[in-house]
Amino acid sequence: MTQAIRVGVAGLGNVGVGVLSLLEANSELIAQRCGRPFLVSAVSARDRRKDRGLDLSAVRWFEDALALAADPEVDVVLELIGGSEGVAKQLVETALANGKHVVTANKALVAHHGTDLARRAEAAGALLAYEAAVAGGIPAIKALREGLAANRISRIYGILNGTCNYILSTMRDSGREFGEVLAEAQKLGYAEADPSFDVDGVDAAHKLAILTALAFGNEVDFAGVHVEGIRQVSALDIAYADELGYRIKLLGLSRTINGGIEQRVHPCMVPLDAPIASVEGVFNAVVADGDFVDTVMMEGRGAGAGPTASAVVADLIDIARGIRLPTFAVPAANLKSLASLQMNHHKGSYYIRLMVVDRPGVIADIAAALRDEEISVEAMLQRGRAPGEAVHVVITTHETEEARMIRALAQIGKLDAALEPPRMIRVEAL
Amino acid sequence: MTQAIRVGVAGLGNVGVGVLSLLEANSELIAQRCGRPFLVSAVSARDRRKDRGLDLSAVRWFEDALALAADPEVDVVLELIGGSEGVAKQLVETALANGKHVVTANKALVAHHGTDLARRAEAAGALLAYEAAVAGGIPAIKALREGLAANRISRIYGILNGTCNYILSTMRDSGREFGEVLAEAQKLGYAEADPSFDVDGVDAAHKLAILTALAFGNEVDFAGVHVEGIRQVSALDIAYADELGYRIKLLGLSRTINGGIEQRVHPCMVPLDAPIASVEGVFNAVVADGDFVDTVMMEGRGAGAGPTASAVVADLIDIARGIRLPTFAVPAANLKSLASLQMNHHKGSYYIRLMVVDRPGVIADIAAALRDEEISVEAMLQRGRAPGEAVHVVITTHETEEARMIRALAQIGKLDAALEPPRMIRVEAL
Repeated sequence: MTQAIRVGVAGLGNVGVGVLSLLEANSELIAQRCGRPFLVSAVSARDRRKDRGLDLSAVRWFEDALALAADPEVDVVLELIGGSEGVAKQLVETALANGKHVVTANKALVAHHGTDLARRAEAAGALLAYEAAVAGGIPAIKALREGLAANRISRIYGILNGTCNYILSTMRDSGREFGEVLAEAQKLGYAEADPSFDVDGVDAAHKLAILTALAFGNEVDFAGVHVEGIRQVSALDIAYADELGYRIKLLGLSRTINGGIEQRVHPCMVPLDAPIASVEGVFNAVVADGDFVDTVMMEGRGAGAGPTASAVVADLIDIARGIRLPTFAVPAANLKSLASLQMNHHKGSYYIRLMVVDRPGVIADIAAALRDEEISVEAMLQRGRAPGEAVHVVITTHETEEARMIRALAQIGKLDAALEPPRMIRVEAL
Repeated sequence: MTQAIRVGVAGLGNVGVGVLSLLEANSELIAQRCGRPFLVSAVSARDRRKDRGLDLSAVRWFEDALALAADPEVDVVLELIGGSEGVAKQLVETALANGKHVVTANKALVAHHGTDLARRAEAAGALLAYEAAVAGGIPAIKALREGLAANRISRIYGILNGTCNYILSTMRDSGREFGEVLAEAQKLGYAEADPSFDVDGVDAAHKLAILTALAFGNEVDFAGVHVEGIRQVSALDIAYADELGYRIKLLGLSRTINGGIEQRVHPCMVPLDAPIASVEGVFNAVVADGDFVDTVMMEGRGAGAGPTASAVVADLIDIARGIRLPTFAVPAANLKSLASLQMNHHKGSYYIRLMVVDRPGVIADIAAALRDEEISVEAMLQRGRAPGEAVHVVITTHETEEARMIRALAQIGKLDAALEPPRMIRVEAL
């Protein structure tokens, strides 16, 4: 057996402790699989005295993570600190500058600085590996970079945030509203005290930007992702979705279109018979459409110490096995810089829900607003109450341009009979 | 860009033509992704004059596949002939003996001779890659060998035969019987004229033996797989499964148990809420349970020219990228030789269906036969008709040993009231 690979671990939160536990529990198995053992030679975290349930007495401790990144007795640096700026970024830059391989679980960092870091890694002849940054334990990065590498990918999408999927699944199961379910998720530890990164779609957008770069060989373009979260999804929409044969999921979806790329994160109506419709609770899924493989879906746990550690250590094993691939599958210099489509040019189908006064002519006015934008109605559902009372009108449309839909909704919102701003959810053909 | 990798393709059936089409369609993309282009330098197939829709005029043609495997202008040999013995086996052995890497889609060959071929590959310093042999386009081999390599795998299972899954899905959708649906599948090209490899579970068992070796670091032990097909599954069982909250799927499943391994292919009742229950039609799925990652499922097309070509070329790309891993993830000398459990020692739950005369004492006799083997009933369902007539009794049990179940069924079969041999389907907790 050849020499041990010396690993420096920066950040001993949930994931860091998970990685150390895994390396200890499966050390023999892993050494067999990659032909050499790992040695955790250094760690860095804020509080040395905190009880983490691990014996770290034999491991060198760095108060300063950057010193760990430059330490000659570290071959690979694990960045498990988090955040797109500050120490995490400096740590990765320092490690790469010192020719050390970096494994990170930091989606924000890779989403914001991936292209630059890829260039730095290549210049230094080092690797930047980030399997754990997307979809937790699902080996989605490896599948895209290697397993599906023979394909031209036309579309990639997924359920990339377990908190949102848990909330939407629970809203559907229980019929309750977003706020109530969020509060429960926070109690159960499925949502953070400040949930906005998750429920506003930012976390999913980070992951989508990374997947997009890898799938299409484009520079990472987080700013190009259109992002909406799930705060506006109501129990009513979920019930109508059921009735119409859909599930509402927060999807991250990218596709190539007219020589550009469309990147978007928002609630979607997905057909019940699409495999991703039955991915429930905290589970994540990643789906790729390739020109030869057709559609491949991967499903698993998208977060948590164990699954994330599984992905981090898979990257370590790749390094130990001598697998040396460019960060985004092709050399950084060859990454394209395709612009992301503006959302008003998006083409798709729509679900709209209106609250109007039930009186003669209202449906005609709504229909006229859609007709004026050349929007074709696929289905309409009206639950009649007594004339003169408020009533829901639910409409699904055929494919149209988003700009047209927005103008039509503005017109409808101005009708005297409209009691609430119209609600819109995109329908995704999967 | 460095020198082209010269590929020799042996076998120009459906898959061979798919591979050549893919290499042509995506040549530029692939060259970018692996830093060097592929050149198809030689082909071998039986009939040179057959129109395959490809221009092969510039490619050297070998009447003799073994000569192709020894040709100095071939770096990698694609074995796309099929069959566990004969030319395919000799071809792979010849190629390896000549130090050439081999990519194969041949599940029978790897299932029967995998350990020996792995040794030959290692001795020659060559690779034996077989992503396409299991689950078509799903990158399941790569996921197990690399993506989940940090985990101790406790169980692996899957829907490994699209023909069987198509037949079972269609039987359920239409209420029709096996024979009728098989005949239709043959007409549609989803089943072979001689369907036994598929419907008797042999094809799934080949794939399971390969997955098992990889997941558990064991020698490939096809002979150790317990194999049953789907011919005995009736429309009635499928209807009862629905009623009891199950789907009937042909699963291949391996798990470590009491220091050994259990490998089995047979129809299973799987709970409706298990993700694999909703994998329908010709789709395949592979699920792995790991100690840190928990459960990961992959779903996609398990057969067809495009998906298989995607997997074959993924292996080629790995080779071009310099990824060099042992055939079954650990050196062949380190593969364990754990015995496979005999099926009579299997422990699990069971669904049994009996056809009996509806008269006093029958249920008591059945219950006594189960009690005598200490088998505990979970649920019982009897559709009463008129006394004295034939009636179905359906029972699900708690976990018991298979030997006990077989003895109990023999006892029940001997009852005067029993009109048919009892039917049994294993219930799988997933």
